[in-house]
Amino acid sequence: MKQISGGVTAAKGFLAASAAAGIKYKDRQDMALIYSQAPCKAAGTFTTNLVKAAPVKWDQKIVEQSPFAQAIVVNAGIANACTGAEGFSYCSQTAKAAADCLHIPEDSVLVASTGVIGMQLPMDRIKKGIETMTPLLSESQEGGTKAAQAIMTTDTVKKEVAVEFEAGGKTVTIGGMCKGSGMIHPNMCTMLSFVTTDLSISKELLTEALKEDVKDTYNMISVDGDTSTNDTVLLLANGMAGNPEITEKNQDYYEFCRALNVINETLAKKIAGDGEGCTALFEVKIVGAQTKEQAVTLAKSVITSNLTKAAIFGHDANWGRILCAMGYSGAQFDPEQVDLYFESKAGRLQIIENGVALPYSEQKATEILSQPEVTAIADIKMGDASAAAWGCDLTFDYVKINADYRS
Amino acid sequence: MKQISGGVTAAKGFLAASAAAGIKYKDRQDMALIYSQAPCKAAGTFTTNLVKAAPVKWDQKIVEQSPFAQAIVVNAGIANACTGAEGFSYCSQTAKAAADCLHIPEDSVLVASTGVIGMQLPMDRIKKGIETMTPLLSESQEGGTKAAQAIMTTDTVKKEVAVEFEAGGKTVTIGGMCKGSGMIHPNMCTMLSFVTTDLSISKELLTEALKEDVKDTYNMISVDGDTSTNDTVLLLANGMAGNPEITEKNQDYYEFCRALNVINETLAKKIAGDGEGCTALFEVKIVGAQTKEQAVTLAKSVITSNLTKAAIFGHDANWGRILCAMGYSGAQFDPEQVDLYFESKAGRLQIIENGVALPYSEQKATEILSQPEVTAIADIKMGDASAAAWGCDLTFDYVKINADYRS
Repeated sequence: MKQISGGVTAAKGFLAASAAAGIKYKDRQDMALIYSQAPCKAAGTFTTNLVKAAPVKWDQKIVEQSPFAQAIVVNAGIANACTGAEGFSYCSQTAKAAADCLHIPEDSVLVASTGVIGMQLPMDRIKKGIETMTPLLSESQEGGTKAAQAIMTTDTVKKEVAVEFEAGGKTVTIGGMCKGSGMIHPNMCTMLSFVTTDLSISKELLTEALKEDVKDTYNMISVDGDTSTNDTVLLLANGMAGNPEITEKNQDYYEFCRALNVINETLAKKIAGDGEGCTALFEVKIVGAQTKEQAVTLAKSVITSNLTKAAIFGHDANWGRILCAMGYSGAQFDPEQVDLYFESKAGRLQIIENGVALPYSEQKATEILSQPEVTAIADIKMGDASAAAWGCDLTFDYVKINADYRS
Repeated sequence: MKQISGGVTAAKGFLAASAAAGIKYKDRQDMALIYSQAPCKAAGTFTTNLVKAAPVKWDQKIVEQSPFAQAIVVNAGIANACTGAEGFSYCSQTAKAAADCLHIPEDSVLVASTGVIGMQLPMDRIKKGIETMTPLLSESQEGGTKAAQAIMTTDTVKKEVAVEFEAGGKTVTIGGMCKGSGMIHPNMCTMLSFVTTDLSISKELLTEALKEDVKDTYNMISVDGDTSTNDTVLLLANGMAGNPEITEKNQDYYEFCRALNVINETLAKKIAGDGEGCTALFEVKIVGAQTKEQAVTLAKSVITSNLTKAAIFGHDANWGRILCAMGYSGAQFDPEQVDLYFESKAGRLQIIENGVALPYSEQKATEILSQPEVTAIADIKMGDASAAAWGCDLTFDYVKINADYRS
């Protein structure tokens, strides 16, 4: 497996385009279209929020019931959430418009929206956007990059990744793009992530691979603890790599799972590292846990602690807040057995041994915590299980962005 | 029942004092001492955080095992949390020092600390503080007020309340003081609350009354979602009002419960309204719920949503975030049945009907949300149960305070 440049157009047969449809933002690209030359097996994971946006309901139906999928229409600016029956009808109108332009069935078109909750989509502009994008569809890297830029909301950077691996003697490519960067606490964030591959694989295994991997990747990030109404990860496989179809958990399947994990973990970390207003990617690793579930609960509790996040913004080794967040997580452990370390490119420093502070250098700690990527590692000394979660610091800019977002 | 001025010294026989002991802060009062002339029945509720500060462990033992309690020693600046066996020994040393000065048993002295986690208490200063305060103990209102000021950390205002009611033909007084204002998400915050009464009541009923009322008051507030290591509510009853001892759930008991609720709800709301950096008290009421538990889950989810809190800071009627937070709460309801209202001194406005936005006036909404106390009311139309939770907005100052707190 090796990382290559590109995103959703890296895999064979996938094309993308973007348009400035004027949905809500002015003078910027705000719609994206992904299209596969061949019909795709589709897998998806969606928000567990009881309040599900219309596109989530639409895509769940397509992924479960349609024989194949072949296109994804995405808009930024309006989330099409809390929009009732009218909002849902706009999903089918969007799908129909794309189906007409692309000469594919309406039920092969997936849709995704991100932005403000509660506003209705301007369907005339959506339809015009689709008409604009259709002739611009490109299999070039640029096509994918433009799509990745168009789906950004409060994101400050586009997020793409691609890797190649071998399956059945063929080179298979898998690429993806995603966006954050607020209302990010995926249980299955508005995180939207789109992953494309030319692998040939059964729908069952494609679905299982995605569902399993999401637990360790997107579901382990948090920007603000708010689980969005629109979280969607879509994975399309068009089979154009020409490998023998994967229908069992053989070596090829596990190689695909490893590649998918690289794609999903990279995209998830890009979202956390570009969290609204953030200055640092904050990683929390729990090691020495008895069970994976315990490690996950502890890691997620620390990554969502506002006090810990504010301390990371202040480059302050305020380890008491980390231990506190572990303590209220609901997971059982012995606080007086915990060792805690801070780590970054500036080095590694043990702060706590058996629950009590060591006489560490505050200066060194601050140096470690002043890097753009910092890690806290807690060893709870109960077993061999571990988990990592990714978040970011809590900053003035987070508040600024979210006190002003709708205006 | 009527509200009167005062705090922990309002009830007969309770004295208080403060001292500038130099625990961590310079040039300010940072220790408080509460003393009862008669032995007290004591009840307490404490943090559910697995990481419990040494004073929490000490007080749990006193409340459960000692025949009576008669004094509380409180310090601000250092939390005595994550301090190991050494930290716990300082609790007994503090109790012994107070016991010697006050001529009461060591096991009748409760202790409480708030401040930075992980530092050891300077015992010489603690002991000197107790010696300084003992001759200053006063039953005046000023004595209570000085104590309420001394226990503040990032609080901007002191927090006291007192009421009088009748029981068994006698006037009974109940008063309290507390402090916030960060790491506040009490599950049964470092919230410390001390309530004193001259009521005569059995220990069993005193304990039950407190445990029940905490659920509707302190446990329904959140500043930042972080459940402290030190949360402590202590309720002392010295019987000096002279009412016949309450030993069953009679009319006097329920009158006491109502008075206790006024004290606890008032103190809890004072903490939420003085949350770190906040500009507004934010109340969330869920009505029309099927069960109290469902209403509590929904109200707490909204009150802890960073996105909702930032919107309140921005005076933005961003109702989508409220519905979103209800949706990920884990409680079941039908999003398409929800009505939502904003209310404050500036009026009341319905924003959503059956899950979809009404054509409300944004200007009026902003006016309502620009008050120092704002309420969101969600009617889920499933039954008659309801719950209220109290929090505050998320501001630049919250981040500033918590990026800098230790320094």
